[in-house]
Amino acid sequence: MTDTAGTRTLAHPERAEIRLEDVLQALADPMRLCVVRELAASEVEQACSSFALPVTKSTTTHHFRVLRESGVVRQCYQGTAKMNELRRDDLEALFPGLLDGILAAAAAEESRLRAEG
Amino acid sequence: MTDTAGTRTLAHPERAEIRLEDVLQALADPMRLCVVRELAASEVEQACSSFALPVTKSTTTHHFRVLRESGVVRQCYQGTAKMNELRRDDLEALFPGLLDGILAAAAAEESRLRAEG
Repeated sequence: MTDTAGTRTLAHPERAEIRLEDVLQALADPMRLCVVRELAASEVEQACSSFALPVTKSTTTHHFRVLRESGVVRQCYQGTAKMNELRRDDLEALFPGLLDGILAAAAAEESRLRAEG
Repeated sequence: MTDTAGTRTLAHPERAEIRLEDVLQALADPMRLCVVRELAASEVEQACSSFALPVTKSTTTHHFRVLRESGVVRQCYQGTAKMNELRRDDLEALFPGLLDGILAAAAAEESRLRAEG
């Protein structure tokens, strides 16, 4: 959307509209889980373009839209860049410990698979 | 598969073959999550037919296959009934706390939505 002032807004679910099913679906994709792990490790918002996922631009856009529409990330424009941050507070309020549990599981799996070579 | 003795075996991933992506994908479906919550609450194995999901028989079979192939449940035949049990030990060894975290999130969401009427 572009209004007359040139600002654009992106649709996000309110906290109360976030559903576990959608959050799990969003995190069940390895590429999206990778994005979420990076966002979790980062102190600051990250531009979509900073991730350089090994997929096309339109697929990258799709993945970020799924993350936004599920309530996992909040996106806003800064100039032409779409910036992303994890909705940690919202997820923690709804599902205490869930995000950290999934991040820990992802880290455990990565370590295990690396050890197996 | 049916061998000459009439016993049938079902393919399961070994513990080391279970992937977080597949587990999250399996649990991201409301019907499958419902099955897993019932299995978690049960002390004994449950037949597929005992769930009476509001879907066709072939869809029910599909959901249980996804749960089995992702490593979330173990299935075996008892006569003509396909019995199911959660692979709690395997999941806990790979992803400590993950299953309980997701079950807690599902319970929290159910309470919240019920309270909202």
